[in-house]
Amino acid sequence: MTDTVLPVLRLKKGEDRRLRAGHLWVFSNEVDVKRTPLDAFAPGDAVSIEDAQGHALGTGYVNPRSLICARLLSRDRRYPWGPSLLVHRLKVALSLREKRYASPYYRLVHGEGDGLPGLVVDRYGDVLVVQVTTAGMERELEALLAALEKVVKPAAVLLRNDTAIRELEGLERYVRVALGEPPTEIEVEEAGRRFVAPLDAGQKTGWFYDQRDNRDRLAGFVTGGRVLDVFSYVGAWGVRAALAGAREAVCVDQSQTALDYVARNAQANGVGERVGVRQGDAFEVLRELREAGERFDAVILDPPAFIKRRKDQRAGEQAYRRLNQAGMQLLERDGFLISCSCSYHLPRDTLVAQMQQAARHLDRELQVLAHGYQSVDHPMHPAIPETAYLKVVYGRVHR
Amino acid sequence: MTDTVLPVLRLKKGEDRRLRAGHLWVFSNEVDVKRTPLDAFAPGDAVSIEDAQGHALGTGYVNPRSLICARLLSRDRRYPWGPSLLVHRLKVALSLREKRYASPYYRLVHGEGDGLPGLVVDRYGDVLVVQVTTAGMERELEALLAALEKVVKPAAVLLRNDTAIRELEGLERYVRVALGEPPTEIEVEEAGRRFVAPLDAGQKTGWFYDQRDNRDRLAGFVTGGRVLDVFSYVGAWGVRAALAGAREAVCVDQSQTALDYVARNAQANGVGERVGVRQGDAFEVLRELREAGERFDAVILDPPAFIKRRKDQRAGEQAYRRLNQAGMQLLERDGFLISCSCSYHLPRDTLVAQMQQAARHLDRELQVLAHGYQSVDHPMHPAIPETAYLKVVYGRVHR
Repeated sequence: MTDTVLPVLRLKKGEDRRLRAGHLWVFSNEVDVKRTPLDAFAPGDAVSIEDAQGHALGTGYVNPRSLICARLLSRDRRYPWGPSLLVHRLKVALSLREKRYASPYYRLVHGEGDGLPGLVVDRYGDVLVVQVTTAGMERELEALLAALEKVVKPAAVLLRNDTAIRELEGLERYVRVALGEPPTEIEVEEAGRRFVAPLDAGQKTGWFYDQRDNRDRLAGFVTGGRVLDVFSYVGAWGVRAALAGAREAVCVDQSQTALDYVARNAQANGVGERVGVRQGDAFEVLRELREAGERFDAVILDPPAFIKRRKDQRAGEQAYRRLNQAGMQLLERDGFLISCSCSYHLPRDTLVAQMQQAARHLDRELQVLAHGYQSVDHPMHPAIPETAYLKVVYGRVHR
Repeated sequence: MTDTVLPVLRLKKGEDRRLRAGHLWVFSNEVDVKRTPLDAFAPGDAVSIEDAQGHALGTGYVNPRSLICARLLSRDRRYPWGPSLLVHRLKVALSLREKRYASPYYRLVHGEGDGLPGLVVDRYGDVLVVQVTTAGMERELEALLAALEKVVKPAAVLLRNDTAIRELEGLERYVRVALGEPPTEIEVEEAGRRFVAPLDAGQKTGWFYDQRDNRDRLAGFVTGGRVLDVFSYVGAWGVRAALAGAREAVCVDQSQTALDYVARNAQANGVGERVGVRQGDAFEVLRELREAGERFDAVILDPPAFIKRRKDQRAGEQAYRRLNQAGMQLLERDGFLISCSCSYHLPRDTLVAQMQQAARHLDRELQVLAHGYQSVDHPMHPAIPETAYLKVVYGRVHR
């Protein structure tokens, strides 16, 4: 029964409601700055969060520089935010993954979704790639590394702290090896198969675990067919389509490096002869394929986020619309369109509407067969919509 | 190039917009009744639907007695609504199911989602159970039976035309054998296993194919655990949980007949010793279990629709809330709550919010791990939200 004495962050009247309903964020305009001035805190300080009457809501950390000026990490006064809570939360996160996945390849921590705001950890066997995005989590970095060592005993840990959102917290961007010697290339196991992907400190690389559960559903849509995988990266969709029985898969990516990995992944899994690649800008390649009269039984569109910020909304939506239309134009009769978006700002309904508009434009009928979300190792927080970002719509286009 | 001459149904100005955007329904207040009086039509008449300028939108059928006074079945003038379109649509529907499912057990036609408003067909091997819900489809009954014989060659066809929604179309309710001798019990194959269920002409029986794809995802949530299946009917969830590695599954249902089928299905699949039953009102049984201190690693709640009509909204939402809270109270630490609703009128977000409220009430944290929809053999029409009715939320409740 610890009763740690922490500095207090007091909320204005009524501003406790969202936290009590389950949310974890405090915005700076919700703080009673007369009683508890924000500038009295240093970025990352641990705090006790209280409502206007002084009732404790829980413990967390604060950052006076950020619009989200505090995050709640524990509602239980017996387990305040700190090193031992970190260990506890890591264990709870690990137990979910160990139940769900047969081998240690997954996202181990997904921020708010795992009750650990500011932290993302991807696990590739005994290699961990860690991303810290808040000053509060950065403050506990040593405790975090110790907790990871205790709970998962990694051989290597890479801190990939170079994401732009760190700037919102006033944090510098850096990449650093925290333990061992992380390889420049990682091996991943998915659906009992082995894949490789680059682990380049300089850019977003690794494996997109968030789509794994969605790739697991490919079989019924690709068996026996010719499949196009647009924005293929290292070929996870395309190679798995071939493994699920596609007679041919064509992977399109701008990066020749990525396509070299496609070829390696296809060969290593015995489907090298059925997986082809095509280097170039996706929109260009789609146009060329159409002009060449090429057709596919299934087209998979898994683009990077076209809407990263609100200001990209208009241009981004247009890009999704163009992409879906171009993809649909390449479909064989009764073909499948598997359309993804990882832009939080593109609602699922809008993506469906865009597919529907494309179908109408081509005088076709769209059926929506299934919906995919991020995989189970990316838990969504029910009160924080931002934690649910990935959308996959499995459609079929008929006359 | 047929150019059938059909009577015309003319819409008012602007009322073609929704149809052009993809919808299939015409409401009676959208018809230009001065030019084309609705009472000139008999229920079920085939019509050509035109916009206010006289441009053809397509062909369909009409029912002056219904609020939805016409439905669009074809936009292509070369293939107007009629017997050969029926054959074509059945083939398009069949090809989807044959790609997706290894054996002939599925919903073969899902109304608007398959471009066949007013028709539902469930297939159990060579037995078909047909439900006709509109006067237009009823008019083509003989053509429909001929089309089904042509496309799927069934041994038996049962017309289960006893649903209450037929009354909206002024249709009488009846059950009739249209072909062969339908059995009183059907065999179903799901995930390579065999199950039996009653096929009683007198009530809603058969197999709930709509949840199959959702049951396919059970493994990671139930393996090694103790599972409670509430509103189990013949045990599809519970028996499949046992097959997925649950050490025990308890099925709760009000109907002893249903529970007798649970026992048979469990035994036939070699998990009879791990599947138990408990007869009674679900809410009562949940209370008794709680009082007895029983706990489960996963609780599955798959109730009948608590909100059948808008007027049930308030009471229905309350029932879902009570059910989710009662289910959550029986969970072991870090347990899984798999919560379903087949009420179209209960939005997915509301179901999640109810689970979240229950978690907060118990001072627990909810993670949303995955979302399920109806199975692929129940296609959703992107412009008709009513065709997407099934919601499954896979949650986990931790501290």
